Amino acid sequence: MSENNEIEMELPFDSSAITSTEVLDRVNALLTLQDTQNELTEQMEKEILEIEKKYLKKFQPLAEKRFEIVSGKVEPTKEDQQCKAPIQVENLKSVPTDKGIPKFWLHVLQNTEVKDIIEECDIEALEYLVDIKIVQVGDAQDYSLDFHFSENPFFTNTVISKTVKLEEDNELNEIVSTPINWKDGKNFTVQSKKKTVKSKPTKGKAATTTSTTVQEVVPCFFSTFVSPNQDPTSDEEADEIMYIQYQIIAKLKDIVIPEAVNFFLGRASDAEENDYDFGEDFEDEEGEDDDEEDDEEEQTIKKPSGKGKAQPQQPQDCKQQ
Amino acid sequence: MSENNEIEMELPFDSSAITSTEVLDRVNALLTLQDTQNELTEQMEKEILEIEKKYLKKFQPLAEKRFEIVSGKVEPTKEDQQCKAPIQVENLKSVPTDKGIPKFWLHVLQNTEVKDIIEECDIEALEYLVDIKIVQVGDAQDYSLDFHFSENPFFTNTVISKTVKLEEDNELNEIVSTPINWKDGKNFTVQSKKKTVKSKPTKGKAATTTSTTVQEVVPCFFSTFVSPNQDPTSDEEADEIMYIQYQIIAKLKDIVIPEAVNFFLGRASDAEENDYDFGEDFEDEEGEDDDEEDDEEEQTIKKPSGKGKAQPQQPQDCKQQ
Repeated sequence: MSENNEIEMELPFDSSAITSTEVLDRVNALLTLQDTQNELTEQMEKEILEIEKKYLKKFQPLAEKRFEIVSGKVEPTKEDQQCKAPIQVENLKSVPTDKGIPKFWLHVLQNTEVKDIIEECDIEALEYLVDIKIVQVGDAQDYSLDFHFSENPFFTNTVISKTVKLEEDNELNEIVSTPINWKDGKNFTVQSKKKTVKSKPTKGKAATTTSTTVQEVVPCFFSTFVSPNQDPTSDEEADEIMYIQYQIIAKLKDIVIPEAVNFFLGRASDAEENDYDFGEDFEDEEGEDDDEEDDEEEQTIKKPSGKGKAQPQQPQDCKQQ
Repeated sequence: MSENNEIEMELPFDSSAITSTEVLDRVNALLTLQDTQNELTEQMEKEILEIEKKYLKKFQPLAEKRFEIVSGKVEPTKEDQQCKAPIQVENLKSVPTDKGIPKFWLHVLQNTEVKDIIEECDIEALEYLVDIKIVQVGDAQDYSLDFHFSENPFFTNTVISKTVKLEEDNELNEIVSTPINWKDGKNFTVQSKKKTVKSKPTKGKAATTTSTTVQEVVPCFFSTFVSPNQDPTSDEEADEIMYIQYQIIAKLKDIVIPEAVNFFLGRASDAEENDYDFGEDFEDEEGEDDDEEDDEEEQTIKKPSGKGKAQPQQPQDCKQQ
């Protein structure tokens, strides 16, 4: 308790609006009210979290059923197909050898903003991605996304977990990733490059050239997200790596996974909406209409500056395109 | 129900990943699961809304007490000032004539992003702003922000309400503002300008110049937000006006009003966090470190493109600077 007080005491503030000791007393009275408000807010957030946990349990059997259909473990009955708005596709042929829904999760990811980091080299490996599960970890708010892969030519893992560890106040603490066990010569996230180094001529020695082989990272989905550099050279790089991952994880968890079928069908969007700049508005008064520019969706992923708050979002309905 | 189905039927989708009638059947089975998931999500959101309403009732007496202290109606006791982390200011004098906390809400607003649209002409009027109340309207999710003003030289209103009306699915429908009853010659949001019009010389007539007086809008907080143009010339302009207002209202309601004292003290922030661009990351590999640029907070207000979803946010703790 007293420790907590000390931290709050240290917060710098601007006292310029406090014009007298009388005003100071009143501001401290407002801070007392704020303490009460903060306690109530904390209680409210706990109650909301309980509700979210309750529903997460109800969502899980649905996710399991989806996995069984996607992977071909279970064949849905006619009854299972009685959705409110069935889709129809003309001129389709029967292909009895089709198992489940081929490349389901690859198509899902390719219809999200994550597609921006999916490269040619990722695609074959992602064809073996058969499920992404949201799993609660421990009693707190920690969770992991488990990427399930069927047997494939690239690595021996069947599950690659990305576990998000939050601090008590919801601050993002750490993201732990399962290391990938690459099969021999199959790690497409690095490539060997020959580097020629020319030594300077020194007294009595002519210049010599030596060539060494260096491993270079290939920027792609697996190197950026699934298995990023575990050995960053600076705190800034570590933070950067963590936040890129967190943004993707949060998007997948809150927006994409709960509605994967609509992403598969390309009719849901995870795009951030536009920033609106106040200053711009004033300039517009005499300028040209730039509505069209405003409507362009930016291909960006939000990155908190510094140690951002990792507020767990409730699953939300996606905008239909 | 059937009407709803028709709407869902119309959603365009990309069928390229559906390779056979077997796959189509399985996709329709996933859509059945999605229907169930959507119903559960709707139930969950209702339960969360109930909790938020319950706490809103608990927050209201605190807001009322704050108003009484800020306006000087009530003098807090020593007991009232026993907050967890009282602030101290050195070298303050006693000014027994100080009433309440002078210019409290002006200082609050000036420490938010809204400051970008507060101009010189707004400031004197905002000194009379004595409270901003969040009021639930009707049984649905509609609400209004009520701006309370003490007697002032500019207008006769004591309350200017901005009411947000949502549709059943949470889409923003309309924002209704109380018209301002300006006192004679005190409307600082418009200025008269003489405009000289030169007519072209025509047959037998020399060019003549006539001057007319036109009313021009002065861009400021009152003209942009409090009492915007009620007579937009196009749907796009109407949408634009609505969304600028909505962004400010949402910020005030969810972030600023619940923690006004910390904004007054300049130690809370309502700044949007940074966008992180994936593409940029790849370029960085060989580029310079641009961490510092990334950390700059952008002074922007988010504007949904088209008819955006107005998801009510739960009150959130503000980042302490």
